[in-house]
Amino acid sequence: MSGPHSPAYLELVEHLQQTALLGSCAHLLGWDEQTYLPPKGGELRANQMALLSGMVHERATAPRMGELLSQLEEETAGAGGETPEAANLREARRSYDRAVCMPKRLVEELSRVTILSQQAWVEARQQKDFSKFLPWLEKVVTLKREEATAVGKDGAPLYDALLDDYEPGMTTDMVHAVFTPLREELVALVQQIAGSERSPDRSLITREYPIEAQRRFGPRAAEAIGFDFSAGRLDEAAHPFCSGIGPGDCRLTTRYDAHFFPQALFGTLHEAGHGLYEQGLQRDAFGTPMGHSVSLGIHESQSRMWENFVGRSRAFWECFFEPACETFPEPLAGVTLDDFYRSVNIVEPSFIRVEADEVTYNLHIMLRFELEQPLISGDLRAADVPAVWNETFKKYIGLTPPDDALGCMQDVHWSGGLIGYFPTYALGNMYAAQFYNAAEAELGNLHEQFAHGEFAPLRDWLRTNIHERGQLYRADRLLKAVTGQSLSHEPLVAHLRQKFGAIYDL
Amino acid sequence: MSGPHSPAYLELVEHLQQTALLGSCAHLLGWDEQTYLPPKGGELRANQMALLSGMVHERATAPRMGELLSQLEEETAGAGGETPEAANLREARRSYDRAVCMPKRLVEELSRVTILSQQAWVEARQQKDFSKFLPWLEKVVTLKREEATAVGKDGAPLYDALLDDYEPGMTTDMVHAVFTPLREELVALVQQIAGSERSPDRSLITREYPIEAQRRFGPRAAEAIGFDFSAGRLDEAAHPFCSGIGPGDCRLTTRYDAHFFPQALFGTLHEAGHGLYEQGLQRDAFGTPMGHSVSLGIHESQSRMWENFVGRSRAFWECFFEPACETFPEPLAGVTLDDFYRSVNIVEPSFIRVEADEVTYNLHIMLRFELEQPLISGDLRAADVPAVWNETFKKYIGLTPPDDALGCMQDVHWSGGLIGYFPTYALGNMYAAQFYNAAEAELGNLHEQFAHGEFAPLRDWLRTNIHERGQLYRADRLLKAVTGQSLSHEPLVAHLRQKFGAIYDL
Repeated sequence: MSGPHSPAYLELVEHLQQTALLGSCAHLLGWDEQTYLPPKGGELRANQMALLSGMVHERATAPRMGELLSQLEEETAGAGGETPEAANLREARRSYDRAVCMPKRLVEELSRVTILSQQAWVEARQQKDFSKFLPWLEKVVTLKREEATAVGKDGAPLYDALLDDYEPGMTTDMVHAVFTPLREELVALVQQIAGSERSPDRSLITREYPIEAQRRFGPRAAEAIGFDFSAGRLDEAAHPFCSGIGPGDCRLTTRYDAHFFPQALFGTLHEAGHGLYEQGLQRDAFGTPMGHSVSLGIHESQSRMWENFVGRSRAFWECFFEPACETFPEPLAGVTLDDFYRSVNIVEPSFIRVEADEVTYNLHIMLRFELEQPLISGDLRAADVPAVWNETFKKYIGLTPPDDALGCMQDVHWSGGLIGYFPTYALGNMYAAQFYNAAEAELGNLHEQFAHGEFAPLRDWLRTNIHERGQLYRADRLLKAVTGQSLSHEPLVAHLRQKFGAIYDL
Repeated sequence: MSGPHSPAYLELVEHLQQTALLGSCAHLLGWDEQTYLPPKGGELRANQMALLSGMVHERATAPRMGELLSQLEEETAGAGGETPEAANLREARRSYDRAVCMPKRLVEELSRVTILSQQAWVEARQQKDFSKFLPWLEKVVTLKREEATAVGKDGAPLYDALLDDYEPGMTTDMVHAVFTPLREELVALVQQIAGSERSPDRSLITREYPIEAQRRFGPRAAEAIGFDFSAGRLDEAAHPFCSGIGPGDCRLTTRYDAHFFPQALFGTLHEAGHGLYEQGLQRDAFGTPMGHSVSLGIHESQSRMWENFVGRSRAFWECFFEPACETFPEPLAGVTLDDFYRSVNIVEPSFIRVEADEVTYNLHIMLRFELEQPLISGDLRAADVPAVWNETFKKYIGLTPPDDALGCMQDVHWSGGLIGYFPTYALGNMYAAQFYNAAEAELGNLHEQFAHGEFAPLRDWLRTNIHERGQLYRADRLLKAVTGQSLSHEPLVAHLRQKFGAIYDL
């Protein structure tokens, strides 16, 4: 900290922290909605969430906030510098400006509608009946267009305004610029792999892995990479997520499939990667930008790092294959480490994004990016989503979904109002590759460490370089500070070419 | 409803409902605190609860509330009548008057301190170390004395003010008046039982009842008596409770002991009895007095009805003994229905209130009533609680607790700030006996119905006569309306004499 703080600064911080505390109550209700809420409690929960989000919004847009921000900007004009105080002021201004553009009615309506819409989505997906979801998708799109119109910049695509909420500073054009070369590389790599004669044995991971045993194994792995279960939990939910409620309380969810081993384990490592970020934030800065993650893309870089760069590495399994054989003696009887490693890295076009391999995964994201833009611009009607989805899916992945549950209704995001969110998943993969290279440059051979169960060096490096910095920098500046580079698809492509080149003998 | 409502009435109802909705968020956080909160999340949760309770208090004491109440009282002056509108107005006035006496600082402090105090209590109880709990007990007592001083009536005992919060209209003197004859009767009955030569076999219920099997059996029984699991849950917690979050969401907790069968099952039936009350409230009246339970004593009459008058009846086991034998084949091998029935009704002086039998249970309550009064008046120092507890326990129950975990630290109430709450448990037992007699007078032989698994008649009778009425009447008036009687210990004593006279051949 840079000396004593002005009363206005302290008041701003106090206001932000109280608002965040109220928001954290809503986060807990949101977690509960996905885990333990009884079916008939849905309407009550929607009303509770609408009330809380309205109150949070009211606090976030309080006129006093505007006064404090203006006063502090005047006081510190020209001071510049990348200090925690400057970062708090900068990001508080950003959030305030965005919030004051949103009418409270819209905030409450979005909160209420998306809770009900998610409940409708669950049912529609179960019944594979898009027509039941359509009216809700239409409502959500209408509300998100309203939001984009309210907060967006004149002349910029409406979609920019939504993207910017999840990845501050990112634009549709910038995403295009990096997705286009990435897609070309990935399509080529997928084709090469399809032509390879070496194919891992998928049956190794679709044997029966008893769920009770999986329930023991996943937390053990999460704990090994450093997730603190005395300050967090792992529960089950239809759609896995990580919810950082606040200091000392970070909750992960996963789902178990007895006949698809990777789902729960890599899902758990993925969410634990998010969880490590949340648990690595500065406790005392809770509620201020300095105690908050940078962006969803940076968040995703942490989850994909632990899921893929660590969990799906051969080195990880040098450490974990023996415990796995002890925990799952039947399905792993006679299986070698190498065969197992290759099986959990099988590359195969498939319908479900969250079960996709490292290579095809980003193509799933690009598909959604292609659909979301016209949905928000008004060029694509919600009713036409299934047809356009299937057509684009065929083009990108080479398959045609047999139904909408395996197609456009597979994700929770649209029912939850999270339009503009998907691109951050692919950005996260690219960030992850760049961070991983920087970590290895500094820490030496990481695979050697993983093979000995040493995950602390990488975790501590991430904590120091990323987690504890909070929002001191925005994503692009952080990337530059940590890696010396700008966003690029190349490190990710290099990682994939090297890893899958070896597995598929390319 | 009695015709169109005035704008002021509609505004009052809207205000009450929004306040209750915010309160329901706090209830969910409270439930989570007892069930799934990670240990390190305690401080955050205390801050969240303090914030929410402060906000609820602010809404409950809003000047606009005072204006609306005064205006409506003027409009309806002399109208009288026992209408839903009059009840809503009467009870809203009562809550408002109580709330405006409480400084917001005290509300927040009570909320924060009792969360932390409960966490300290858990640890102190585990370690059987009263000295670790003492500073917290002192804090809680000081705050509750402050509360009683703020809201109490001049000249009345401070304790009245706390009692009245849980049982509106009840006073210390009225409790004394009914506890005194009840104690005499119970002490005599306990002595008679102790002198009986027929003693049920305690070993039948302390054999190993596998917890997994208990986890199946309890919900089955709760469902049979009518608890709707699509609008509720059953989880595990250190201290069993029922939390009616709101329409469609009522949560029960229980705890399992593999070597004490009655604990989880009767605990579950007890909480399910509370749950049936919550689920029987008028959904549309949520947030108003007409959609709220009458008092904790009336609430307890419902839980004790289902736990004792139903669950511990021979008739219940005529229906449930066979399923029990199927679920627990080993411990119940060769056991007869009669022996089992007698074992779950064994009367024996014991240390832990929540495990006490129907006869000695109320003596545990009276002990707490005797200690709470001087604690609040200032005549008993918190530091002296263990000594006075043990002395009184010896006098009432005839035993001396070997440690404070089995003595004055056994209950969650004091750490949770719930001083004045205990008497409602014994009141509930008396109400239950009176309601049960009235139900039987109307419905015919209830035992015959239970033996055939027919619990709907009693449940529906309770729903119509008690649950759906909300706070239309206060407790004494409701009792009179339903049973034609005033509060009396006699029906309870008659029930106990008849039941245990048969079991112990008195």
